[in-house]
Amino acid sequence: MIGGGQLARMMIPAAVNLGIEIRVLAETDGMSAELAASGVGDYRDRATVLAFAETVDVITFDHEHVPQEILHALLEQGTPVHPGPDALLYAQDKLLMRAKLSELGLPVPDWAAIENAEQLGEFLEAHGGRAVVKTPRGGYDGKGVRVVHAAHEVDDWFLALAEDGRGGALLVEELVEFTRELAQLVARRPSGEIAAWPVVETVQAGGVCSEVIAPAPHAAGRVADVAADIAITIAEGIGVTGVLAVELFETTDQRLLVNELAMRPHNSGHWSQDGSTTSQFEQHLRAVLDLPLGGTGTRDAWTVMVNILGGPASGSLADRYAEAFAAHPTVKVHNYGKDPRPGRKIGHVNVGGDDLDDVTYQARAAAAFFQD
Amino acid sequence: MIGGGQLARMMIPAAVNLGIEIRVLAETDGMSAELAASGVGDYRDRATVLAFAETVDVITFDHEHVPQEILHALLEQGTPVHPGPDALLYAQDKLLMRAKLSELGLPVPDWAAIENAEQLGEFLEAHGGRAVVKTPRGGYDGKGVRVVHAAHEVDDWFLALAEDGRGGALLVEELVEFTRELAQLVARRPSGEIAAWPVVETVQAGGVCSEVIAPAPHAAGRVADVAADIAITIAEGIGVTGVLAVELFETTDQRLLVNELAMRPHNSGHWSQDGSTTSQFEQHLRAVLDLPLGGTGTRDAWTVMVNILGGPASGSLADRYAEAFAAHPTVKVHNYGKDPRPGRKIGHVNVGGDDLDDVTYQARAAAAFFQD
Repeated sequence: MIGGGQLARMMIPAAVNLGIEIRVLAETDGMSAELAASGVGDYRDRATVLAFAETVDVITFDHEHVPQEILHALLEQGTPVHPGPDALLYAQDKLLMRAKLSELGLPVPDWAAIENAEQLGEFLEAHGGRAVVKTPRGGYDGKGVRVVHAAHEVDDWFLALAEDGRGGALLVEELVEFTRELAQLVARRPSGEIAAWPVVETVQAGGVCSEVIAPAPHAAGRVADVAADIAITIAEGIGVTGVLAVELFETTDQRLLVNELAMRPHNSGHWSQDGSTTSQFEQHLRAVLDLPLGGTGTRDAWTVMVNILGGPASGSLADRYAEAFAAHPTVKVHNYGKDPRPGRKIGHVNVGGDDLDDVTYQARAAAAFFQD
Repeated sequence: MIGGGQLARMMIPAAVNLGIEIRVLAETDGMSAELAASGVGDYRDRATVLAFAETVDVITFDHEHVPQEILHALLEQGTPVHPGPDALLYAQDKLLMRAKLSELGLPVPDWAAIENAEQLGEFLEAHGGRAVVKTPRGGYDGKGVRVVHAAHEVDDWFLALAEDGRGGALLVEELVEFTRELAQLVARRPSGEIAAWPVVETVQAGGVCSEVIAPAPHAAGRVADVAADIAITIAEGIGVTGVLAVELFETTDQRLLVNELAMRPHNSGHWSQDGSTTSQFEQHLRAVLDLPLGGTGTRDAWTVMVNILGGPASGSLADRYAEAFAAHPTVKVHNYGKDPRPGRKIGHVNVGGDDLDDVTYQARAAAAFFQD
């Protein structure tokens, strides 16, 4: 696994259970996945990645940022890479992603590639005077995303593009009137088998996922079927291997539009660690090893995941265990082993049960023990 | 954790989830818990254990074999030890255990300490001409246990005792007419809190646990209450900290008799990894760290655990994954990372569901993929 963050860390329990030897190329010492880190190095350095690859059978990722050139070099060296470069391309470049999804006939917000303020102005005029502009590469968790109401609000980004010299464009999208956000996760093996978890509702705060409800309330039937169909079409259409997360907008007129893609385990799937027969981490391992996928049924009527963002103002998460565990004996805590820092995702809690109000209350109350 | 076997290995996922740094003193390289092994050394060597203890906050165990002298030295050095030496004594010496349980007024088979064939002959005469003789120390999984019908059948053990020179005795017990074997697991914190899982039924084959059904069928009510009371009485009576497993006989006249004790996670509790809100491994960590214990409710109506004994005649468990996973997508496989060898416990499967016949069938069928 390239990248030593919390996604790599949470792969460790699944690997230990299945007796799969996991090795991690971490960015620095002391990363979340340190226990499995067999090396530290820069994933943008070809020699580092190729040398790491010689110690493993299959390469997969904690993030989507390994350069295409290195991904292709891995394949040339004979190392299977899942997801492969041709799929990852669409997670690395939002403009290519939008074009591909449109080509696949999938519902997406109106969008355009824009190279200057004049083009942005035209898009704004056609879409009620407001839009979302995104840098095609490198953004996540709300970074590289700006809601604009005037043509000159992203002049700094146009300037950076011009200086970059690669002749790129920005992505502009209509500001979708959505009632809520959903996420559909699936996993796909190289040999083609696909398994879908139930669609979930995601709640964002400040551009960052704060809460996930699994399954999404009031989604059984049509919404769930459409969400699964969209994700399966994408997974097959661009040849994703491993876990694919599709972030969706549900609009006021009950349509689903594709927002973002991630080709790895995703925050919206953390509920599956305690709420599904097969966690997204185990499923990702099965998928990248081309093993038959596990059952994706739910273990409780409702599972709610609440992120621990920032953490306590002083001390560590573990300092709060005595109080939190005493108050919430059925809550499952996942601690990423990261130092608290404002806004940083350092853990999450999962709670399952029959009554959604009760489960939501418990998950929020438990998470609150870990934040000041 | 002292000892690098599968129990230490299965502690790793719980430690990773909770962000607890786990270090293992393993007996050799390449043990099951190698991922967390920070050292390799002899647990019977005082200096080795004391040096390891200086790198951790709390000491616990994968087995009960660390000598008393070393356990006390750890306490003198200021390292908390859970379970402590005064409790572990009763897991280390079956004669002391029998005496203590009798003192606590708990139901046990008739027993005696015997030093020669004549005493064994008297016991046999008083118990229908048959009995079970056990070496008080070092036996497990049926080792050091012999069913006898004549006074001279353990002369070799008496001879070994005499040569040992420490003046020990053997334990003789009545051969209990039991209808089945049960196991009751509880966890206890140093500060006194106790949590009990539901009593389970264990099925043995050739003196080794082969299958566990959780909860034990037809045990709700009186049997379950009595089993929990017995284990709680023992945990409190001898000051156990961490997980305590009490193996019980259910007799033809529906009494429960205490067979053996283990003061650590136990094979009869592996079902809890997938079948309980809190696995025995997470609970053991919580207990030895004196943190509030987690919920011990079941996640399914029934969970069945089947051991993988021996493994395939050639190749590894993972070689069978493709077929086993395809046939049983909801089965959870736990692979200890050990080489197959006749009779060796190298993994287990857990399956949960509503119908006991179906769950049992699935668990056995899945385990069969891993054995020739």
